[in-house]
Amino acid sequence: MDALTLFRNIREKKSFLCVGLDTDVRKIPEFLRDEEDPLFEFNRRIIDATHPFAVAYKPNVAFYEEHGAGGWRALERTVAYLREKDPSLFIIADAKRGDIGNTARMYARAFFERMGVDALTVAPYMGSDSVQPFLEYPGKWAILLALTSNPGAEDFQFFSDGKRHLYEQVLTTASGWGTSDNLMFVTGATRAERLRDVRRLVPEHFLLVPGVGAQGGSLEEVARHGMNDRCGLLVNSSRGIIYAGGQEDFAEAAAAKARDLQRQMQRLLEEKGLV
Amino acid sequence: MDALTLFRNIREKKSFLCVGLDTDVRKIPEFLRDEEDPLFEFNRRIIDATHPFAVAYKPNVAFYEEHGAGGWRALERTVAYLREKDPSLFIIADAKRGDIGNTARMYARAFFERMGVDALTVAPYMGSDSVQPFLEYPGKWAILLALTSNPGAEDFQFFSDGKRHLYEQVLTTASGWGTSDNLMFVTGATRAERLRDVRRLVPEHFLLVPGVGAQGGSLEEVARHGMNDRCGLLVNSSRGIIYAGGQEDFAEAAAAKARDLQRQMQRLLEEKGLV
Repeated sequence: MDALTLFRNIREKKSFLCVGLDTDVRKIPEFLRDEEDPLFEFNRRIIDATHPFAVAYKPNVAFYEEHGAGGWRALERTVAYLREKDPSLFIIADAKRGDIGNTARMYARAFFERMGVDALTVAPYMGSDSVQPFLEYPGKWAILLALTSNPGAEDFQFFSDGKRHLYEQVLTTASGWGTSDNLMFVTGATRAERLRDVRRLVPEHFLLVPGVGAQGGSLEEVARHGMNDRCGLLVNSSRGIIYAGGQEDFAEAAAAKARDLQRQMQRLLEEKGLV
Repeated sequence: MDALTLFRNIREKKSFLCVGLDTDVRKIPEFLRDEEDPLFEFNRRIIDATHPFAVAYKPNVAFYEEHGAGGWRALERTVAYLREKDPSLFIIADAKRGDIGNTARMYARAFFERMGVDALTVAPYMGSDSVQPFLEYPGKWAILLALTSNPGAEDFQFFSDGKRHLYEQVLTTASGWGTSDNLMFVTGATRAERLRDVRRLVPEHFLLVPGVGAQGGSLEEVARHGMNDRCGLLVNSSRGIIYAGGQEDFAEAAAAKARDLQRQMQRLLEEKGLV
């Protein structure tokens, strides 16, 4: 999928919502835990209920790896189900991989060829050859960590050479490795005021913004500082949507949360004149 | 396993060799490819042949993920086989994970509880809460990327605040998060001259040193600059050992390479007066 198609999907659904599938077997409703594949059964119902309001889904790979080979199968089934349910969905494997070139190529095969997702989150620490293999697949994306939403972001991402912070150095350097059609950046919503600086450095790239909801970020702030003239934002909410209800009504509760966010997003897109 | 036990194992085997199981189905001998689980069958023979010369094994998770759920099963079987074959082996999952605290806890469960490895490689970019969950398991280790062996290491790891490079900042900051019994650092052999600076910052921690062999690093240089009075080194070789032979003799060829490295290591340990 290229950036223009993604923008078209955003306009069609009037939403730039990404639903994070951080599916924790301890948190899913009791009645699903006896299913043969509880992670998939939970995801399937969440997807059925929320897909009209979302343009993207982001399974967090850790939550599947916890269950070993069976977890991987649940992840693969989830990706296949998303594709089948709505071919316009942008599917992100949130795996934060990063390794030397020959290993990165293996990860690219694992996620782009075998699993068939559109995008993979990637860590920048190991530099260009750890990212390049993901940029060589037409229509696929690397989503590089720049400024994350967690407290530990302070430790190294703000390390500075006196002119710029490390996360700004990552944005500046890495934006030369790819294009706005195959490279996005993660910028946490808990630091929305920083989005202005990010936009100055990468005016055209899409940003994947986690941290709205459970982590406390504000959607209005994110849109004010981060939206560009092709939207340029995918805002993720995970726990705030998928665990909105805890019982038999969990899918309806998730849909209500997703619809609520979609409506806020529609208003923000209208204010910007994009829909 | 604590650091003293690891050192005892090093003295017993007169080796600080880590064998990297970067098992690529395209590179294993033809006659194994028809097996039901070729990755495991290759690994099993490599382990049988090389374990007298190695204190540690490091499966590279990417090479298993490439095969989806089946690849995870091969990885799980490999770890179980290592445990059974030689309970003294130190098993590292080379996965380079790094994510916010609640996700890092999932990765810790996946690798430490379910898979049962001793150590996991971890990327530092997201800071303390992305590493802390791995340090909370008694006897388990986080192995944090500091200075890597690939060309892309130049991009960000040498970013400097005028006093120190980023990789030095990582060493200094992160060494306060754990102890020399639960935290190691990755320092590439292709930059052996930098090991002196690394040792100044973390005199007591074990270092995991990739890049000897296929990537061109020198074992003598690594030992000269990096060895401390409890050895403090695990030197990894992957492709140089496991693909030393390409035919039916591949396991014997791997054993010969591993034995050769073990003998060089024995000499270096003797020179240092550690065996």
